[in-house]
Amino acid sequence: MSADCPFCRIAAGEADAALVVLEDAQTVGFLDNRPLFPGHTLLSPRAHIETLLDLPDDVLPELFANARLLARAMEEGLGAEGSFVAINNRVSQSVPHLHVHVVPRRRKDGLRGFFWPRHKYESDDEAAAVADRLRGTISSLRASAWQERRRRAGIP
Amino acid sequence: MSADCPFCRIAAGEADAALVVLEDAQTVGFLDNRPLFPGHTLLSPRAHIETLLDLPDDVLPELFANARLLARAMEEGLGAEGSFVAINNRVSQSVPHLHVHVVPRRRKDGLRGFFWPRHKYESDDEAAAVADRLRGTISSLRASAWQERRRRAGIP
Repeated sequence: MSADCPFCRIAAGEADAALVVLEDAQTVGFLDNRPLFPGHTLLSPRAHIETLLDLPDDVLPELFANARLLARAMEEGLGAEGSFVAINNRVSQSVPHLHVHVVPRRRKDGLRGFFWPRHKYESDDEAAAVADRLRGTISSLRASAWQERRRRAGIP
Repeated sequence: MSADCPFCRIAAGEADAALVVLEDAQTVGFLDNRPLFPGHTLLSPRAHIETLLDLPDDVLPELFANARLLARAMEEGLGAEGSFVAINNRVSQSVPHLHVHVVPRRRKDGLRGFFWPRHKYESDDEAAAVADRLRGTISSLRASAWQERRRRAGIP
């Protein structure tokens, strides 16, 4: 727990419990106090994990199963026609404690243009070069993760 | 596989493989052809699953572990300062095959105002009533899921 973190305080039960909508072993969901639409919920790990990049394997399935549950609840309980599920990592992240936004959506609700402005790649070569860089990085990130697991398991 | 679905075609290897950045047992990641920023990747289950709400338990951990991997790759491989990870369910969902957007971000990259317009609840009572409705729905969705698991396991 980080003493200055508002989401750690909510997870510890030190904030307004009336706004908590979901409590689970490793995660807690609570209403955003300045919602895009009523019902806009933030879902966080109880532990002070800063971003998705830092999320441990043993918390990941519960966190996203609960995001799925909240997306279902938006439709079932609030009559939403759909939902928006989003995470800001570092940039545009207001509180440095990982939180998944789950927002009820309706058609023509005013959030048009969510994903703008978008531009095609200038050429197929430009796109292929970007894809190639990502593939290489993913490959080395996976190799490092594998070596780290071996190291932790005591395999030389 | 759905014959008309462009993302099923990509998963089946029938589309431009140059844009595929990640291939895994149950998921595939590929460049969006009209990116917010170069490197904007879509990550989908190989199976034709429409929304997050329909995502089976056995695909969920791989999908989100790979979203985490892509978010790491945006920083490590593309020099991003952060990332945006998002799912549109039904509303604003261009292709009805679940896809997680993973977008590299930089400060002052022009995507300010991502989460606007936001408004406080009119009163604490209004917020409490919304939280209450969500809690009730979550509770009954969990009870249904539990009964469904019992039914599948043949428990009367």
